Amino acid sequence: MSKRVVGPEIERLIQLMAKLPGLGPRSARRAALHLIKRREQLFTPLTKAMGDVLESVVVCGTCSNVDTCDPCTICADATRDAAMICVVEEVGDLWALERAGAIKGRYHVLGGTLSALDGIGPDDLNIAGLIERSSASEVEEVVLAVNATVDGQTTAHYITDRLEGQDVKVSRLAHGVPVGGELDYLDEGTLAAAVKARRPF
Amino acid sequence: MSKRVVGPEIERLIQLMAKLPGLGPRSARRAALHLIKRREQLFTPLTKAMGDVLESVVVCGTCSNVDTCDPCTICADATRDAAMICVVEEVGDLWALERAGAIKGRYHVLGGTLSALDGIGPDDLNIAGLIERSSASEVEEVVLAVNATVDGQTTAHYITDRLEGQDVKVSRLAHGVPVGGELDYLDEGTLAAAVKARRPF
Repeated sequence: MSKRVVGPEIERLIQLMAKLPGLGPRSARRAALHLIKRREQLFTPLTKAMGDVLESVVVCGTCSNVDTCDPCTICADATRDAAMICVVEEVGDLWALERAGAIKGRYHVLGGTLSALDGIGPDDLNIAGLIERSSASEVEEVVLAVNATVDGQTTAHYITDRLEGQDVKVSRLAHGVPVGGELDYLDEGTLAAAVKARRPF
Repeated sequence: MSKRVVGPEIERLIQLMAKLPGLGPRSARRAALHLIKRREQLFTPLTKAMGDVLESVVVCGTCSNVDTCDPCTICADATRDAAMICVVEEVGDLWALERAGAIKGRYHVLGGTLSALDGIGPDDLNIAGLIERSSASEVEEVVLAVNATVDGQTTAHYITDRLEGQDVKVSRLAHGVPVGGELDYLDEGTLAAAVKARRPF
C-alpha cells in the first residue's frame, strides 16, 4: 500500500509472505488476512509449527536430505536397499520420488547442478560425498535422477566420469511419454526419445 | 506422502501451509522447502513476523478493521473526512479501496453479508454499530461499497432501509466498464448497466 493504513507488523508480515513461492504481493495480503481471521485454527498452530521446524530441522550428514533427525529418516531406515543410491538435484526431487514410491534404495542430494553460467563447479555441489559413498562395497548401482535439462545432463555426465573405475552400475531415468500424456502435446525431443526406446508390447 | 519420509514437525508444517489460500498440498511442500533452505533470509524473519502480528493484532472497536492499534490507523487519522463512512464486507475490500486511494473518509467493516442460505442475519453482522456511527451529526454520507453479488445487494438494501430517517446521504459504487477492460469480454449485465449510466463525453 502506498500510504500506510495498517500497523508496521502486518505490513512486514505481508512483505515476507510475498517471498514464498506461489504467492505474490496480492495473494500474500489475502493469506495474511486469512491467518488473522483464523487465529486459533491456523495462525497460532502454523506459527508454532514453523518455530518447531526452525528448531529441529537439520541436513542429513550422509545424503544432504533435510529432516528433523541426522541421519535422516530414509538413511536410518534399515529396510532400505543399501545397494542403490539415487542421485537427485534437490530435496524436492527426493520428495517427489518418494511420493511415487519408485526408489527402494537411499538418496544423495547434490544441492544443484553444475553450471558454467552461474559459476557452479563440482566443489560447490555434494559430489565428493557421493563418490565416497558409492565406493562402499555394498553399493551396486547409482541411479542418476537429475532433471532432463542441459545442466542436469552435464552434471550426470560429470558424475559418470568420476565414478569410472568404481565397481558400480550407473543408470539414468528413462525418457518417454508421460503416463496419461497425449502425444499431440509432447515436444519432438520427447517423442523421438520415446520411439527410439520403444519396447515390445 | 503416504509413507513417512520426513520428521513429523515438517509434515505438520506442510499440512498447515496447505491451508493458506493460494497454496495446495504440492505448493505447500515447495513453500516449506523454500523456507527451510532460506533459514536466515526468510524462515526466521517470517516466523518472528507472524509471532509479532499474533501478539499485536486487534480488531478496531470503531470500524472492525484489523490493525495493531485500536482505534485503527485509519480511524485515528484526524486528516480523514469524518463526514463519510464507506461500508465494506471484509477487511480485504477496505485494503483494496485504500490501495486505490479512492476513499477520503473512514470505513465500516460488516464482516460479511446477509445470507438466508447460510443463516446470516443482521445481528451476525456489524450493522448496529454502523447505524449508531452514522447517526453522529458530522456524518453526511454512507457509501455502500459492498460486492455486486446478490447477497451484497441484499445487504445494501437492508442497510438503506435501516438508515431511512437519519440525515445521511446513502450512495453506492458505480457499475460500468472496468478501466482497461474490453467490451467483448464483459457480461451483458455490466454492459447494459454501463450504457444506462452513460455520461456526456
